[in-house]
Amino acid sequence: MSYFRDNIDAMAGYVPGEQPPPGAKVIKLNTNENPYPPSPAALMVLRELDGERLRRYPDPSSAAVCRAAAKVYGVPPDWVLAGNGSDELLAMLFRVCACPGRAVAYPTPTYVLYRTLAAMQDAECIEVPYDEDYNLPAGGLAAASAAMTIVASPNSPSGTVAPRSVLEELAGKLPGLLVVDEAYADFSDENALGLVEKHANLVVLRTLSKGYSLAGLRLGFAVSQKPLLDALAKVKDSYNVDAVACAVGAAAMEDQAWKIANAEKVKASREKLAAGLRRLGFAVWPSQSNFLLARPGDGEARRLYEALKQRGILVRYFQEPRLDDKLRISVGTEQDNAALIGELTKLTGPRPTSARQP
Amino acid sequence: MSYFRDNIDAMAGYVPGEQPPPGAKVIKLNTNENPYPPSPAALMVLRELDGERLRRYPDPSSAAVCRAAAKVYGVPPDWVLAGNGSDELLAMLFRVCACPGRAVAYPTPTYVLYRTLAAMQDAECIEVPYDEDYNLPAGGLAAASAAMTIVASPNSPSGTVAPRSVLEELAGKLPGLLVVDEAYADFSDENALGLVEKHANLVVLRTLSKGYSLAGLRLGFAVSQKPLLDALAKVKDSYNVDAVACAVGAAAMEDQAWKIANAEKVKASREKLAAGLRRLGFAVWPSQSNFLLARPGDGEARRLYEALKQRGILVRYFQEPRLDDKLRISVGTEQDNAALIGELTKLTGPRPTSARQP
Repeated sequence: MSYFRDNIDAMAGYVPGEQPPPGAKVIKLNTNENPYPPSPAALMVLRELDGERLRRYPDPSSAAVCRAAAKVYGVPPDWVLAGNGSDELLAMLFRVCACPGRAVAYPTPTYVLYRTLAAMQDAECIEVPYDEDYNLPAGGLAAASAAMTIVASPNSPSGTVAPRSVLEELAGKLPGLLVVDEAYADFSDENALGLVEKHANLVVLRTLSKGYSLAGLRLGFAVSQKPLLDALAKVKDSYNVDAVACAVGAAAMEDQAWKIANAEKVKASREKLAAGLRRLGFAVWPSQSNFLLARPGDGEARRLYEALKQRGILVRYFQEPRLDDKLRISVGTEQDNAALIGELTKLTGPRPTSARQP
Repeated sequence: MSYFRDNIDAMAGYVPGEQPPPGAKVIKLNTNENPYPPSPAALMVLRELDGERLRRYPDPSSAAVCRAAAKVYGVPPDWVLAGNGSDELLAMLFRVCACPGRAVAYPTPTYVLYRTLAAMQDAECIEVPYDEDYNLPAGGLAAASAAMTIVASPNSPSGTVAPRSVLEELAGKLPGLLVVDEAYADFSDENALGLVEKHANLVVLRTLSKGYSLAGLRLGFAVSQKPLLDALAKVKDSYNVDAVACAVGAAAMEDQAWKIANAEKVKASREKLAAGLRRLGFAVWPSQSNFLLARPGDGEARRLYEALKQRGILVRYFQEPRLDDKLRISVGTEQDNAALIGELTKLTGPRPTSARQP
């Protein structure tokens, strides 16, 4: 007998993007961090935390986070559940929903973690391909009739967004849960938060990792009607969000002006970077997030990924069908982006004709 | 069809001990926090963390924690896996090991969370009762031959410890994993860490919540041989330990002198508190942890729990078989303990004869 379950023996773990140690001299455009620092008001809260706060267990309900999210996003506080990053909330959703006989459906290519989480639960995955323009395959997802359907919107690695009207229609058709993973919503013109009120099977996930520049803090939250959150709470670690994340995260949410100003800068840089890449012959997908999916003219993405890495610039390369000829590039500071374009110009040279743009 | 798995619909979540909000005026002896503050060196690291550390994702391997634990506990760094509290590591162990057809065994009464985690996995629990003196029912546990066997040592709520020699013999007999949950080992004369080298099926769990006074930070670690940790890593959230917990926790482990001095104070107070309770007619179990299991002479534990709460003193009461006539009392500061004895003296009065002591 193995010490472990068969599905665990058979699966591989998820491999996150490379994280160089603090202080390493790299331009890091591989895991979609916000290039700007977190709110100074939030950092002030960090500095003022005392030993007493660390000595005691944190609030199991993370009420400060729920109150802040409720205020900012206009939902009741008990429609908010905080998690140790939205990754933990995803894992909790799989734990309550997915098992042998209860399948999970999602469009692909998307966040590879969904497949790993399904494997942990020994649940079937129904993968419905996006078309080349990343229109949501809503018909295929509805037909799959899965226990849980997940749509990342904006999607990673495409950066494209699923229209709210399409998500609403899909929520109405599905017999199970519809999870809208909105990790990148702070950079998007559209989101599905307003649909939660109408659809008891809909849950929207948000994170403070991207828009709020707090990837190191680990804080995300789910928004849905209360019965759904009550089920999730059953499988939650009692003290899943630590006292630091709770206090600092709540303060960051209360500083909307800071977050919005940074998101505006990222969005402006995103369009400038996309134009620069197109001038170099890349096909670039229209992005509503803080990264770009880009195909070099010759499709030699792996070569570019490795050459950039040698030059101290990290971007993301996925050895996956439909992605192995593309790069996912986080939008950095203006300086980071200029350095990237500079290196790519040397590596690819300017192209006389432009690629067909998706 | 329910939105959720049948076992999730059927189960109740774990209910942690009451956590009054920061600043509440209570003497808190209900969830076994250390009464003394965390290491000043660790708090210094907290104050010096900058926005850049929060902006970026943390190290997925929490290498700083692994290195510190390796140094302090004399094991290779890759025999250490860090978790968001040892609760997360327990949940991960259940995820890799337990499912229908793969049972979990543990002696009872013990940490109630084990039952909840088994329910999440839809796994059978084999509960083997302790005798009244809390000797480990090693024969019954070996006979159960479960996929995973868990022993909390020191056990909660009894505070009693399983002898290392008994655990070693049990590890050798079991076909599956033996998890020794050593959350309270910093207050114990004995632990099982040294057995990991000899037994590939043994994993020891530690936490920084108790000995290191960092319950609010959420940091624990597992120690075992590497193949076992490799399986656990497959089901780990990529960034399960945040950048703050990683840096502050590593610094706390490096300050052994602080931890040991506080543990010595707690152990001295524990014996004094036990003597005080015995003078009031309580039966008190011999504790190797930072709490005491105590039965009032009349068994009216619930009445005392409620009366103490009204007077601003929180202790733990479990409405469970064999526990509903007892209180679990965390060892506080000398002042906290004196206040408790003072209130109990008023509530119970001194007893002319002493209870039989376990």
